[in-house]
Amino acid sequence: MKSVDSEKAFQDCYSDDVSHCYGCGRLNEAGLQLKSYWDGEETVAVFTPRSEHTAIPGYVYGGLIASLIDCHGTGTAAAVSARKEGFNPTGGESFPRFVTASLQVNYLKPTPIGVPLEIRAVVEEAKPRKVVSAITVLVNGILCAKGRVVAVKMPDDFTLPNR
Amino acid sequence: MKSVDSEKAFQDCYSDDVSHCYGCGRLNEAGLQLKSYWDGEETVAVFTPRSEHTAIPGYVYGGLIASLIDCHGTGTAAAVSARKEGFNPTGGESFPRFVTASLQVNYLKPTPIGVPLEIRAVVEEAKPRKVVSAITVLVNGILCAKGRVVAVKMPDDFTLPNR
Repeated sequence: MKSVDSEKAFQDCYSDDVSHCYGCGRLNEAGLQLKSYWDGEETVAVFTPRSEHTAIPGYVYGGLIASLIDCHGTGTAAAVSARKEGFNPTGGESFPRFVTASLQVNYLKPTPIGVPLEIRAVVEEAKPRKVVSAITVLVNGILCAKGRVVAVKMPDDFTLPNR
Repeated sequence: MKSVDSEKAFQDCYSDDVSHCYGCGRLNEAGLQLKSYWDGEETVAVFTPRSEHTAIPGYVYGGLIASLIDCHGTGTAAAVSARKEGFNPTGGESFPRFVTASLQVNYLKPTPIGVPLEIRAVVEEAKPRKVVSAITVLVNGILCAKGRVVAVKMPDDFTLPNR
């Protein structure tokens, strides 16, 4: 389903103080702990929804799909930025942290529950403080949802600039 | 913060078989159990995020905000449809069930955690099988996020039509 060319997930390269996100923080024990990786020029994450993540019985609820797209988008933005800035994954440097400015999700097919979801991103735009990714969610190769994340570099005080 | 002109939440008017959604199903014990109500011509829901719903510490993660917008949008669509069709809330009739075709969220400000979020919808378009809502998320009257939900009436077999 995926091949990865980096051993360490993007989210495991965040510094501890920004690793508490419910969607992807490795320090959030109650959360989803999404893990994203490079796969060539794309990025990929795989997540198997829990039974409680139901919408209509048998299918995944849309909020989870939105969450996965969101966190994969910000993770991809961080990885792109780190790659451009020459981040050294073995040198102990943390990734920069991006947050979401906008999120778009189109639900194309009901997404079956109980099987792994593959979340893939293609970077459409990469500026130092803004990264835009087009994201797809597939189940067994079938496109179930697609989305777009505009991620912006988190300011030190986490007061987002006006957009 | 809210005044409601209906005692019963929209989501409590769904039939049992479609009341398992993680975001708003009254039968999903692990879920968020969002409750939406009429407030004049608008609709409103109030939800206080749990401590684990963190993004960067101190703030609510974007996936939760997306989930609340999503479920408030589908609930609003069901309520609008029920009102148009002359649903009798005291007669034991269930609301029609709508599902999300597309979801847009713009994150305008970091959303503080630990206080109630007010989610409001204004219906922009209401057709028998499609309802579009513009949604805002406020904390203490301050606009933190806004969104748009395109909801479509759930087909009996939950196979969404091509869009």
